[in-house]
Amino acid sequence: MTKLISKRSIKAGLPPGSLVHLGDNVPGRASITVINYDENDFKLNKANTAQECLSYIDPSMITWVNVDGVGDAEVIETIGRYFGLHPLLLEDVMNTDQRPKMEDYDDHLFIVVKMLLLGNGGRVVTDQVSFVLGERYIISFQERQSDLFNSVEARLNNNKWRIRKMGADYLVYSLIDVIVDNYFVILEKLGENIEVLETELVSSPKQEILRSIQTLKRDLIFLRKSVWPLREVVSGLERGESNLIAGTSRIYLRDVFDHTVHAIDTVETFRDMLSGMLDIYLSSASNRLNEVMKVLTIIATIFIPLTFIVGFYGMNFKYMPETQSVLGYPAVVLLMALVALGMVRYFRRKKWF
Amino acid sequence: MTKLISKRSIKAGLPPGSLVHLGDNVPGRASITVINYDENDFKLNKANTAQECLSYIDPSMITWVNVDGVGDAEVIETIGRYFGLHPLLLEDVMNTDQRPKMEDYDDHLFIVVKMLLLGNGGRVVTDQVSFVLGERYIISFQERQSDLFNSVEARLNNNKWRIRKMGADYLVYSLIDVIVDNYFVILEKLGENIEVLETELVSSPKQEILRSIQTLKRDLIFLRKSVWPLREVVSGLERGESNLIAGTSRIYLRDVFDHTVHAIDTVETFRDMLSGMLDIYLSSASNRLNEVMKVLTIIATIFIPLTFIVGFYGMNFKYMPETQSVLGYPAVVLLMALVALGMVRYFRRKKWF
Amino acid sequence: MTKLISKRSIKAGLPPGSLVHLGDNVPGRASITVINYDENDFKLNKANTAQECLSYIDPSMITWVNVDGVGDAEVIETIGRYFGLHPLLLEDVMNTDQRPKMEDYDDHLFIVVKMLLLGNGGRVVTDQVSFVLGERYIISFQERQSDLFNSVEARLNNNKWRIRKMGADYLVYSLIDVIVDNYFVILEKLGENIEVLETELVSSPKQEILRSIQTLKRDLIFLRKSVWPLREVVSGLERGESNLIAGTSRIYLRDVFDHTVHAIDTVETFRDMLSGMLDIYLSSASNRLNEVMKVLTIIATIFIPLTFIVGFYGMNFKYMPETQSVLGYPAVVLLMALVALGMVRYFRRKKWF
Amino acid sequence: MTKLISKRSIKAGLPPGSLVHLGDNVPGRASITVINYDENDFKLNKANTAQECLSYIDPSMITWVNVDGVGDAEVIETIGRYFGLHPLLLEDVMNTDQRPKMEDYDDHLFIVVKMLLLGNGGRVVTDQVSFVLGERYIISFQERQSDLFNSVEARLNNNKWRIRKMGADYLVYSLIDVIVDNYFVILEKLGENIEVLETELVSSPKQEILRSIQTLKRDLIFLRKSVWPLREVVSGLERGESNLIAGTSRIYLRDVFDHTVHAIDTVETFRDMLSGMLDIYLSSASNRLNEVMKVLTIIATIFIPLTFIVGFYGMNFKYMPETQSVLGYPAVVLLMALVALGMVRYFRRKKWF
Amino acid sequence: MTKLISKRSIKAGLPPGSLVHLGDNVPGRASITVINYDENDFKLNKANTAQECLSYIDPSMITWVNVDGVGDAEVIETIGRYFGLHPLLLEDVMNTDQRPKMEDYDDHLFIVVKMLLLGNGGRVVTDQVSFVLGERYIISFQERQSDLFNSVEARLNNNKWRIRKMGADYLVYSLIDVIVDNYFVILEKLGENIEVLETELVSSPKQEILRSIQTLKRDLIFLRKSVWPLREVVSGLERGESNLIAGTSRIYLRDVFDHTVHAIDTVETFRDMLSGMLDIYLSSASNRLNEVMKVLTIIATIFIPLTFIVGFYGMNFKYMPETQSVLGYPAVVLLMALVALGMVRYFRRKKWF
Repeated sequence: MTKLISKRSIKAGLPPGSLVHLGDNVPGRASITVINYDENDFKLNKANTAQECLSYIDPSMITWVNVDGVGDAEVIETIGRYFGLHPLLLEDVMNTDQRPKMEDYDDHLFIVVKMLLLGNGGRVVTDQVSFVLGERYIISFQERQSDLFNSVEARLNNNKWRIRKMGADYLVYSLIDVIVDNYFVILEKLGENIEVLETELVSSPKQEILRSIQTLKRDLIFLRKSVWPLREVVSGLERGESNLIAGTSRIYLRDVFDHTVHAIDTVETFRDMLSGMLDIYLSSASNRLNEVMKVLTIIATIFIPLTFIVGFYGMNFKYMPETQSVLGYPAVVLLMALVALGMVRYFRRKKWF
Repeated sequence: MTKLISKRSIKAGLPPGSLVHLGDNVPGRASITVINYDENDFKLNKANTAQECLSYIDPSMITWVNVDGVGDAEVIETIGRYFGLHPLLLEDVMNTDQRPKMEDYDDHLFIVVKMLLLGNGGRVVTDQVSFVLGERYIISFQERQSDLFNSVEARLNNNKWRIRKMGADYLVYSLIDVIVDNYFVILEKLGENIEVLETELVSSPKQEILRSIQTLKRDLIFLRKSVWPLREVVSGLERGESNLIAGTSRIYLRDVFDHTVHAIDTVETFRDMLSGMLDIYLSSASNRLNEVMKVLTIIATIFIPLTFIVGFYGMNFKYMPETQSVLGYPAVVLLMALVALGMVRYFRRKKWF
Repeated sequence: MTKLISKRSIKAGLPPGSLVHLGDNVPGRASITVINYDENDFKLNKANTAQECLSYIDPSMITWVNVDGVGDAEVIETIGRYFGLHPLLLEDVMNTDQRPKMEDYDDHLFIVVKMLLLGNGGRVVTDQVSFVLGERYIISFQERQSDLFNSVEARLNNNKWRIRKMGADYLVYSLIDVIVDNYFVILEKLGENIEVLETELVSSPKQEILRSIQTLKRDLIFLRKSVWPLREVVSGLERGESNLIAGTSRIYLRDVFDHTVHAIDTVETFRDMLSGMLDIYLSSASNRLNEVMKVLTIIATIFIPLTFIVGFYGMNFKYMPETQSVLGYPAVVLLMALVALGMVRYFRRKKWF
Repeated sequence: MTKLISKRSIKAGLPPGSLVHLGDNVPGRASITVINYDENDFKLNKANTAQECLSYIDPSMITWVNVDGVGDAEVIETIGRYFGLHPLLLEDVMNTDQRPKMEDYDDHLFIVVKMLLLGNGGRVVTDQVSFVLGERYIISFQERQSDLFNSVEARLNNNKWRIRKMGADYLVYSLIDVIVDNYFVILEKLGENIEVLETELVSSPKQEILRSIQTLKRDLIFLRKSVWPLREVVSGLERGESNLIAGTSRIYLRDVFDHTVHAIDTVETFRDMLSGMLDIYLSSASNRLNEVMKVLTIIATIFIPLTFIVGFYGMNFKYMPETQSVLGYPAVVLLMALVALGMVRYFRRKKWF
Repeated sequence: MTKLISKRSIKAGLPPGSLVHLGDNVPGRASITVINYDENDFKLNKANTAQECLSYIDPSMITWVNVDGVGDAEVIETIGRYFGLHPLLLEDVMNTDQRPKMEDYDDHLFIVVKMLLLGNGGRVVTDQVSFVLGERYIISFQERQSDLFNSVEARLNNNKWRIRKMGADYLVYSLIDVIVDNYFVILEKLGENIEVLETELVSSPKQEILRSIQTLKRDLIFLRKSVWPLREVVSGLERGESNLIAGTSRIYLRDVFDHTVHAIDTVETFRDMLSGMLDIYLSSASNRLNEVMKVLTIIATIFIPLTFIVGFYGMNFKYMPETQSVLGYPAVVLLMALVALGMVRYFRRKKWF
């Protein structure tokens, strides 16, 4: 389950730029991949330490440094020092409770987005991915190891794709595109859940449905927090003044922007639908109560007067002429039949059944 | 039923510009119509392949290429190459889960709108229509075959109409106008359904009404998703800086804009009314419960004390003077009559019936 | 009752500018009044045909052509041709399902507003009024005959009023002012209805009140649709760049603008109040249910144990010592009195009555 | 009680600028005070007629004309003519159903604000105050006599205060400041009422609380109508381009602006709290119903089977072996005890009591 | 408990700039700390009077005057006169019921923010902190003594930190940063409470939960009032034109801005979640009612006909053949068994249990 808020309080009072990992995941060793590529060549190295990683960087090619795991302050710091990154930027990389945002540091752009993954139990899990885009390099920091970027790696490895001929800005676009495309995997999953719930709601409305609706609503609240600010981030990249983004890349960013808006639309539609389902649920619950009450009322109302009558002739008065007459018994039975029939007709006319 | 979200996930990981059909409809053969016209002439050809279609294009006239069915990647690609369209544009044409939008590619405009049709069962179905407007040509891609554009074709065929004398921009306006006019056919249908529901709500509020309200609400949610962004699209065309749209056409686009705003207004009014109907439904349901409970309570409350009394004199105590007296029986009957009357008056005073 | 949406569908597929009447009212003959006036003179003529009407126009004076009834396409077309009006403008005049709007055609302004009238049964009826304001003329098209403009006519006829000395723009202001002033007549009527409902709600909340609240809500929804866009129209006139509106008239338009905003405020306040009343209604309905249930529960709970006791001693066991004892009967009566008292005290302590 | 809407309809059809009093208060004689002051001198005169009032004006000093009561058209007109005020401005002064607003007539500013007073019964009453601010004069029109401006008068009378040294703009600021400060008196009163209601809600939720919540809500709706537009008015004064407002006064207006925003915040907070209280009220009402129902159900469910058993052995069958046995009676009593105990344990396990 | 509104009314009528303390806390002695620092030196002095405090100021260094307690008008006035502060500014310092805001007085900036603290009982308490930022000095006024600024003091005392090398603007940033970081301490606490409530809601929904939800909602309403305007304040500092804020400090302010937006996001998410929990609570309450009613109905409906039957054969008619027959008793017992079984099957089929 996504936590409501992560422990930021341990940082209160520390000077700005203090590199402390804030997030759910235990800080551990980071795993680093360095890719150098240009139109003709592609080199991939895995590094165990930050120092080793730096040695793999080939300034004559475009470099992509991918860091999986942001809990190791030393790694972050070493890389940061090498590329001349601001301490606040590094702090934001390690603090995985950031809002998606884009910041322009003139000679590099800092981009924070949220990757959405399906955790166990079908709950949505958010992972923070930060990008630093320089002129000929890009650094990506992932909160956790994930295989989402493998497809981009594969495309880089194959020189038939456009990606090898274009700059670092196109690479960052490709990575964001992969992340946003993955949103739709999550949204489809949620959409399926909603449709299942809708069908269940019609066939047998139970209390558990309410809880499922609430769980979906909560997931959507967290999705919104990731998707809404992303819109501004991508729009900022597309329309921004940074010359790190080439004109040819902007047309692709516009496409990502469309997808983001589409994702937002879908989230809002889901929210509307869940509200509608809640209304249906609540009203069918109260409907069932009505029906139950009606049955009770009809049965009680028919039998109460009859029970009174039989009680009446169960009284032990010595002088009670009806009980002595031979006709008394059949007359009373007839009377009760008439009362019952009258009741039934009354309820029929009132359309109670 | 409109699906909540279509399967986008199959694209996650593919490079941008990959032409894969995303939508509910099975990809199949596209059917292509090529119309060339100017003030004096009108030529209509049906093509079976993309190559054949290209051969019909007459550059000296205005050309309208209409493609029904967007599932055939080869057709889309061949036409795209001929007119120099961007791969992302072609991707959007094939992905029929787009949001309505307008994009300016300098020498051509790309417009995506949603056509609304009534499917079987009276549910609203959305079909994507994409337009590419160049200086002397227009390409329209329809998700499915529909006869909505026939009236425009007929007008083109008859040289008494203005449309023959004007440029491709007027043609694109005419096609969008036809689509927006058709929204009102849908809205009228929904409006009639709402009025029928309103009448039913007054005469006999049943559980099914709730479900109908919910279905209409869902339809309106999808309508909104199509109509709201269209507003921006048309306004973008009207006020945009593209010189593909002549000044004389802009006055017509303003008219379409008015219709779009009117459609939005109507959708919002319908939503307001459905909310009001939901309130009415819920409250009349709880009102009926109240009435049922009142009847139960009144009957029970009158008979419970009486039943107690008759039970009392049904006790088998040997020494119980009342039962031995001749007056016992009539006295008890009188007592019960008084109790019943007192109850009835009490409820009358409380205005319970 | 205001229809939810009027039949626009009959226009779907027709070319733009087709003059077909869209609206609730049967197209019939239009009745035309032509007024020519300047500071010194005032001439009023009634015309039967469009041709006759045109013959009355005196170009040396300011001309006001008032057309009551917009169902006759020929009349609209003849007048439109004379004044050089765009076909789309004439289409909008005949289509009485327009949104209030203002359009600038350089040498004339086109203004559509909604007149609100109280129909029979106290329901609000909207009538469309269109104005064309030229340099020295104004044409007004009313959907239906109404006597709202009589007061302006009377002022024109009397040379003591400013209106005779000012231009056509002041006349159009005066007509809009009369229409907006009339909104307050409607709002006052609705306000009175709301106050009556409020009082009834306090004295005797019945199911009919709910329906009245809903009817008022519906009326307000339609009022909003007329008043909100009017705000933009008047603000557009006041702040617009058209030199058809003199500076001295703008100060008057600002006044109309204030009234429009005031009307909007009032509509929103009414909506807020109706929501509050709905809350009150629903909660007092559930309150009455509570009370009914309490009475039932108290009576049932007191008598159920007593009835059990009397039933107990009604059992026919041969060996049942209590029934044989002389003290049995009074003891049981005492027991029952104690049980009943205990119950009453228990409910008292629970503050149930 | 604040009326929902005042009778504007009597003006419909009258030409603009007609001086007719619109408001709840009977038009009567106006009472006029003329104050002339500069750094050295202070003169206060009370006038009975408009003519007399004009004679007191000393053009060498700053003049403040305060008119209490706006029902006398002659007074308004005479003063208006003297200062060269527009007929529409005078109309707005007399029509006390205005929205707060600020209008710039180049050589004077026209400001309308709402004064809030506590009427009898603790209900909020709004009074309209209009200001005309000229270069060296200010005219204030109050709908009703009030003593709110006495403190400003007193400060003017005492030359130790800054107000004597500053211009008419500082005076108008001081008067608006007094009015806005008084809003907080009203808000504090409402805040106290809300806190009292909150406490009552916890201790004993009754139906009357609902009505009090609704009354407070209604008051807040009217407060909002006065305060929200005031924000724009004050901001317009502070940031406006009029050179009637000196730079040194703008810093004071910014302060009033802060107070206005603070008042708006408070109104919105109160509204949020009342909504929360409504939720609490409704849910505790339904909670009490639940509890009542539970008691009924438990008692009924325990006694119904027992009553059946005693009824069973009350049957008069001749051949019914149990009733003839000596053990029959104690066995049945035991059976009933077991049934009752079983029921109680069942409810205990279900945590019903 | 945070008061809804503090007593502002005692100021109504007073001239602007009157130094009267408005707030919950008793005015008392202020405790003043004066810190002078530059890159090389750090001096801290505690002063008992305003005069003493002024004597400690060293103009050659950067000075931070921290005043704890704003109830002593003389202290505020003396300091204000020394630094040339506007009377309205000093009034705002003493009036602790301010909205967070930033005002630019050219040679100094005035900033009001709210510090959030956890009071006893876990309720959120707001304390006002005002800053005056001059070129080489900063004055901070705290409503109450708190140890929140101690960490900044400690950093100042240690020349290894950047803060010693930077200007007064960096110090004001550090202080605001500490305050905003502390918001997350509060938000975490509230988040934990919400999660506890959520778990309780699932296990055992009680009436107290409703009250806890309401209390949290109220806290969030007050939090919003503090956090939303802070956003504008920080954004105003970051993007403002004041040259008191150096470019290097702006990058840090952007960081605070991000945190503020993050806090707002969190507050809104909490509000959404509380609404969802309210829905769950109300619906599970009504669900339990349904269940209770069902049990009652089933038991009553099964036993009512049986009780009627036993009552029937309890009638004392002399001529009632069944009672005389040997088979009567077992036949009736069989009949009752059949009736009971039929009922049970009927309810089973209706899925009532």
